[in-house]
Amino acid sequence: MKVEKAKGKLGILIPGMGAVGTTLIAGICAINREMALPIGSLTQMGRIRLGKRTEDNKPLIKDLVDLHPVKDIVFGGWDVFEDNVFESAFHADVLDKKLLEDLRPELEAIRPMKAVFDKSYAKRLNGTHVKERNTKMELAEALMQDIETFKEQNNCDRLVMIWCGSTEIYIEEGPVHETIESLEDGLRNNHKDIPPSMIYTYAAVKLGIPYANGAPNLSCDIPAIIELAKQTGSPIAGKDFKTGQTLMKTILAPGLKCRALGISGWFSTNILGNRDGEVLDDPDNFKTKEVSKLGVLEEILEPSLNQELYKDLYHKVRINYYPPRGDNKEGWDNIDIFGWLNYPMQIKIDFLCKDSILAAPLALDLVLFLDLAKRAGMSGIQEWLSFYLKSPQAPQGVTPINDIFKQQIKLENTLRYIAGEDLITHLGQDY
Amino acid sequence: MKVEKAKGKLGILIPGMGAVGTTLIAGICAINREMALPIGSLTQMGRIRLGKRTEDNKPLIKDLVDLHPVKDIVFGGWDVFEDNVFESAFHADVLDKKLLEDLRPELEAIRPMKAVFDKSYAKRLNGTHVKERNTKMELAEALMQDIETFKEQNNCDRLVMIWCGSTEIYIEEGPVHETIESLEDGLRNNHKDIPPSMIYTYAAVKLGIPYANGAPNLSCDIPAIIELAKQTGSPIAGKDFKTGQTLMKTILAPGLKCRALGISGWFSTNILGNRDGEVLDDPDNFKTKEVSKLGVLEEILEPSLNQELYKDLYHKVRINYYPPRGDNKEGWDNIDIFGWLNYPMQIKIDFLCKDSILAAPLALDLVLFLDLAKRAGMSGIQEWLSFYLKSPQAPQGVTPINDIFKQQIKLENTLRYIAGEDLITHLGQDY
Amino acid sequence: MKVEKAKGKLGILIPGMGAVGTTLIAGICAINREMALPIGSLTQMGRIRLGKRTEDNKPLIKDLVDLHPVKDIVFGGWDVFEDNVFESAFHADVLDKKLLEDLRPELEAIRPMKAVFDKSYAKRLNGTHVKERNTKMELAEALMQDIETFKEQNNCDRLVMIWCGSTEIYIEEGPVHETIESLEDGLRNNHKDIPPSMIYTYAAVKLGIPYANGAPNLSCDIPAIIELAKQTGSPIAGKDFKTGQTLMKTILAPGLKCRALGISGWFSTNILGNRDGEVLDDPDNFKTKEVSKLGVLEEILEPSLNQELYKDLYHKVRINYYPPRGDNKEGWDNIDIFGWLNYPMQIKIDFLCKDSILAAPLALDLVLFLDLAKRAGMSGIQEWLSFYLKSPQAPQGVTPINDIFKQQIKLENTLRYIAGEDLITHLGQDY
Amino acid sequence: MKVEKAKGKLGILIPGMGAVGTTLIAGICAINREMALPIGSLTQMGRIRLGKRTEDNKPLIKDLVDLHPVKDIVFGGWDVFEDNVFESAFHADVLDKKLLEDLRPELEAIRPMKAVFDKSYAKRLNGTHVKERNTKMELAEALMQDIETFKEQNNCDRLVMIWCGSTEIYIEEGPVHETIESLEDGLRNNHKDIPPSMIYTYAAVKLGIPYANGAPNLSCDIPAIIELAKQTGSPIAGKDFKTGQTLMKTILAPGLKCRALGISGWFSTNILGNRDGEVLDDPDNFKTKEVSKLGVLEEILEPSLNQELYKDLYHKVRINYYPPRGDNKEGWDNIDIFGWLNYPMQIKIDFLCKDSILAAPLALDLVLFLDLAKRAGMSGIQEWLSFYLKSPQAPQGVTPINDIFKQQIKLENTLRYIAGEDLITHLGQDY
Repeated sequence: MKVEKAKGKLGILIPGMGAVGTTLIAGICAINREMALPIGSLTQMGRIRLGKRTEDNKPLIKDLVDLHPVKDIVFGGWDVFEDNVFESAFHADVLDKKLLEDLRPELEAIRPMKAVFDKSYAKRLNGTHVKERNTKMELAEALMQDIETFKEQNNCDRLVMIWCGSTEIYIEEGPVHETIESLEDGLRNNHKDIPPSMIYTYAAVKLGIPYANGAPNLSCDIPAIIELAKQTGSPIAGKDFKTGQTLMKTILAPGLKCRALGISGWFSTNILGNRDGEVLDDPDNFKTKEVSKLGVLEEILEPSLNQELYKDLYHKVRINYYPPRGDNKEGWDNIDIFGWLNYPMQIKIDFLCKDSILAAPLALDLVLFLDLAKRAGMSGIQEWLSFYLKSPQAPQGVTPINDIFKQQIKLENTLRYIAGEDLITHLGQDY
Repeated sequence: MKVEKAKGKLGILIPGMGAVGTTLIAGICAINREMALPIGSLTQMGRIRLGKRTEDNKPLIKDLVDLHPVKDIVFGGWDVFEDNVFESAFHADVLDKKLLEDLRPELEAIRPMKAVFDKSYAKRLNGTHVKERNTKMELAEALMQDIETFKEQNNCDRLVMIWCGSTEIYIEEGPVHETIESLEDGLRNNHKDIPPSMIYTYAAVKLGIPYANGAPNLSCDIPAIIELAKQTGSPIAGKDFKTGQTLMKTILAPGLKCRALGISGWFSTNILGNRDGEVLDDPDNFKTKEVSKLGVLEEILEPSLNQELYKDLYHKVRINYYPPRGDNKEGWDNIDIFGWLNYPMQIKIDFLCKDSILAAPLALDLVLFLDLAKRAGMSGIQEWLSFYLKSPQAPQGVTPINDIFKQQIKLENTLRYIAGEDLITHLGQDY
Repeated sequence: MKVEKAKGKLGILIPGMGAVGTTLIAGICAINREMALPIGSLTQMGRIRLGKRTEDNKPLIKDLVDLHPVKDIVFGGWDVFEDNVFESAFHADVLDKKLLEDLRPELEAIRPMKAVFDKSYAKRLNGTHVKERNTKMELAEALMQDIETFKEQNNCDRLVMIWCGSTEIYIEEGPVHETIESLEDGLRNNHKDIPPSMIYTYAAVKLGIPYANGAPNLSCDIPAIIELAKQTGSPIAGKDFKTGQTLMKTILAPGLKCRALGISGWFSTNILGNRDGEVLDDPDNFKTKEVSKLGVLEEILEPSLNQELYKDLYHKVRINYYPPRGDNKEGWDNIDIFGWLNYPMQIKIDFLCKDSILAAPLALDLVLFLDLAKRAGMSGIQEWLSFYLKSPQAPQGVTPINDIFKQQIKLENTLRYIAGEDLITHLGQDY
Repeated sequence: MKVEKAKGKLGILIPGMGAVGTTLIAGICAINREMALPIGSLTQMGRIRLGKRTEDNKPLIKDLVDLHPVKDIVFGGWDVFEDNVFESAFHADVLDKKLLEDLRPELEAIRPMKAVFDKSYAKRLNGTHVKERNTKMELAEALMQDIETFKEQNNCDRLVMIWCGSTEIYIEEGPVHETIESLEDGLRNNHKDIPPSMIYTYAAVKLGIPYANGAPNLSCDIPAIIELAKQTGSPIAGKDFKTGQTLMKTILAPGLKCRALGISGWFSTNILGNRDGEVLDDPDNFKTKEVSKLGVLEEILEPSLNQELYKDLYHKVRINYYPPRGDNKEGWDNIDIFGWLNYPMQIKIDFLCKDSILAAPLALDLVLFLDLAKRAGMSGIQEWLSFYLKSPQAPQGVTPINDIFKQQIKLENTLRYIAGEDLITHLGQDY
């Protein structure tokens, strides 16, 4: 495959500069100053096996494919609060205060543009740093204007947009989302099924900019945007960063299934105290997240094919707003399994994690891989990036894959394919 | 590949008819009477995807390849206690007493032959149902005589042997294990580095019988036996059933690694109260198990290639004999991980499992797949069966694979290969 | 104190013969046949220290005070389903099926009387074995008739009633509950703030029968009933059996407080799958339970007196209906504490318990101690039985005590007082 | 009781200025500067109820009895390393680095005196800042000289010594410990059963200085020292700070016992990575700690009196050196309990604690209460301070009490007794 060179500056545009966004930005600053390492990022730290097992050839991924270097990134974005990135990171209370002080001048220089926001899609948020226009189409045009200005002022060669904002209320795919025309009509008529996140998506994809969606909002997971992405040559990837509990679930469920162990129940609860937790404390917003989180087991376990093992699985997911924890999320899972002759056993998993620490490297990888895809001429849904997503979009006609290890093989074989290397099957009959 | 048909009766010979062996036997009886299901067994319950994702073709494994049917199995074995299978299962206290009563006549009919045993290799065991001979070679010959008699009396078409006995004291590979000649000399001279388990292995492999090793004893993992297996056309698979904690570890570690998350420590402790726990309470026997359990992380994580992530990993494994639990083992793991900018997080896993319930279906699968391999003309190390083993044997020159998902791909692609189906790469660029 | 002798038969009347009630009844049958032990019951197994530490005198409680013997108990009750006790215990799936079969004739002989029930107080219940009358007062009279008939037919010397039925919807104390007159008017006028449980309470207390309340319903915790209890000489004890999670909480919280450790958050979640779980899945019924469960920390920790330690404590309780578990409840608690210089620490508790197994011995103790109180001439609120209750009633003007160890001292010193023994202060300056 | 006034300066002398000692010292500095709170310390934060429940009178303990104020404390001590307190605290890595920097001048000014040390009692320690003398008696005399010098130079009114050093190897009480004479002979003859810690104890008690022992070493728990303490009027308190896991155990075990719940097994494991963990990695030193930790259940549960409940309890304690954690100890407990009709249940406790954060306030309380006792004319074993100790010393002829709630009552009633207040029995028949 022919891939254009990654030259000049890459602009990363972030709608929602809260905990995740600022952890990404401050992290990149710290990494570029060699104060810290980009742990958790495949594009920066990951290796990939090439050739036969006996060749022992496992280069860094960034040495196999031409990824944009992190030192040549500039950040911009929008937020409903006017805090600069230093202030926002300070309030998010994810990173060490001393580190933030060291990076203060750089971080203070990044100030959010006024956001497209509508409180009816996120009742617990009270932002004031907000654009006022008559129609959603005018808001989209204002965003496109922001983007063009940003690109010019920062002298960017290319841009990528990644949604790091809140989870909006639950919206199902409807007629307005069906075609480019219906969507554009809806934008002009302020259709209620077009939430703010979708306006950002439209703006980015309309301009041919790669777009990733870190929340479970519909956003780019509608036919209109998928079609538009193909027309404008925009690669897209959504939806919802696969971090804490769902990450563990899509690691563990394939492991239980590969051993044909039955599962009668899976109870997942979370406690977290950041702004994300506050927004999800509203049932309408939780619904969006719940749907995203519940789907993964069904697809991995295929209860219709494996009835004795999974048809009675009772799956429950709870998220509890619990302020003492801030961003230090904790996920507790109880899994009721059964084995030989149906004897029951139990697994408990307690994951003491940090939400934004897990999400930031995914955001970086998505951005850099989408930029690679763009330069490789790939557009539309990038299924090989499912690896990073809780509720991945798949091409029409196939079921999305949630098993993280199948996602990994798909990602790795795609990288090998882009680089012209042999795919790997692990057959190994020749040793 | 050409595979002989699975006809007649298959004899399963089990050295060590304790908790695992009797759970396997009683389970097969219950399953054949349709009183229970073979949950946890891929050969009985598992499916495999064939062709493209859009074809949606996922037959049962046993419909893809010709596996010996469980209704045509006969069991035999050896033990240091003379209890019949009903009595032994009753004392093991794994299965429901009512179920055992229902199967009583069948189980009572199976009586162990006198074992080859030497207390110095398992100090906590006090068996009396033991063969007396002058040399280890004479013991091997006595076993071979037992095998021939069993085959004839039970009118078996083919046999497989699977070690379900105790963990012996730690022995390192030495000169006596190097060649067939040195091993046979050792057997004649009662060399101390030839423990009882190795005598069984020699007897089976010498007769061309497929052999699986469910314990961490050296057994078939020595050059002499590997060479002999090739000569006699015996497929072999070792070592140590991958059940509770190590199963979880080889599920989770690939998941953390695929996301480039760092690990600073992994502490694993177990409590169990069965005979296995009692034997492992002796430090010499624990050493054997510890080596088997410790190895997996190193291979999966490759700290030499991923120094920032894994070079300081402190890995500790403990096994505690704790009688209140009997066979209801509990494994507790604490994993100290770190992410973006080296921020620390923690994962705890509590696995309330049943040792023999997890092991029995592995034993069944190993036996049936080894029999398939034999009929397919495959001999020596069957690396595709690593999937079932804690410390798998690999062909000379390559490192064993412990990542359960790579093991699964290897197993599945081997089955596809045997059946003449396309291998699967998950690239999917054609959708 | 003068205590009448415990002679003849004691009748235990149980409104709600579900999991708890049948586990109590079947348990007493099994214990009387010497098939099992009354573990968890102080009246049957507990000891009490008397005199000085050096005297080493710790008799059984039942040897200190004259408790009614369990062999002379007869059971009766009401339920909304007409299942006999064997059938109900079988469906509750708490006790071993073989044990129930052994007790079958005895259990089948106990059939519930028609219940007083109104679906609007427990929407998830669909009972049909229900009394029909025009007014709540008529229902109360029908219950009193049932009671008299039962006493006569079973030749009982004395009776005790204990509510083992469901949690009803949340009702606050209101004017109708203020005086005996207002309550009796309410009964005649079908006042909506008089739920079925209160009708049982009225019937029992009106007849001078000791009454205990195992659910968080208001029941006997209203001025009218307290007054009536004094008039009729009925000892009463409520409310809500202190079993699983709250038991642990009132054990642990005093332990943290006695060390002056701070607490910033306490998150408690439960999974259970029995009928209780199903009823509590309705928010109106959960509210009643939640209020009962939330109160204990406030009283134990006294945040107003210990502001630096507890004023910011965030306490959250969740109950999740999770059918795979049945009666095998699991409570998971996360406690965020802080120590010296405010450094944070965490405690997690996972309690794999059995709801009815924990509740049954409490029900037995409450019944036998209430009968003792009645014979000792004690009436009204029995605060010394707070030990068994999640949301105990206290005399007017004092705050209820939830610290289980203070409750224990109160219970033990009351028993010493009844028996004329010295109270114990643990000063021990004389050793 | 008559208590002398707490005037002038109180000198706290600490053998072993490692993690606990420096956390205490730095903490007191921070508290005196109002930078932090003495959470976990009863003498500073705790309240005590006086009079009847209706009086609602709960003053601070320090307002009830005359405790020495923390602003008038001076610190001194000995260590085998010559690091000053700033350096030692920095390496211990317990407290925030920024806090230590803020306190640097004060902490640097405190330099340890040369220690009495003998590597054969703590093989994993390699100290060099050590006194050299010919006999143990000469070492004791050197310590007494140090003490006198310190008192004079710092102008102290009174002194208290508290052992915060390592756990030494296991030594059983023997003839040398029987009388003052035998002990003094042993000191002169370098008897091997007199470890360094006992030399400090002798020096302090000989001078009439109150002495507390924070480790499980024999120290003041021998007849010779108890006798000497009475002669010289020294109050003593030992042994072993009751912090993490044992604290939880003596909270929970009384809770289970008070409900007559049976216990079949209690498995306790710890992971920690500080110097304490390193020392305990040696089996001889672990033995000392194990004996201290194992004893508590036996005394609380009284299996000989409660055979059906506790006679088969299998109690196992493990400590694992696990460097990734440093001072952030984690204790995991599994408790197998059984209830009504012997049905089994399980409790798991995971305590993520900080060793020195839990120990420092105990050290402070012990020091201040011992000083109070000295001024009140109390000498010898102070059983009311058992509350703070894992393996408390009791007067001859009585069993030590480990139940933390009985210990608390004893402590509180002792304080009421000293202050001339009524003792509390919780009977409450008068409300």
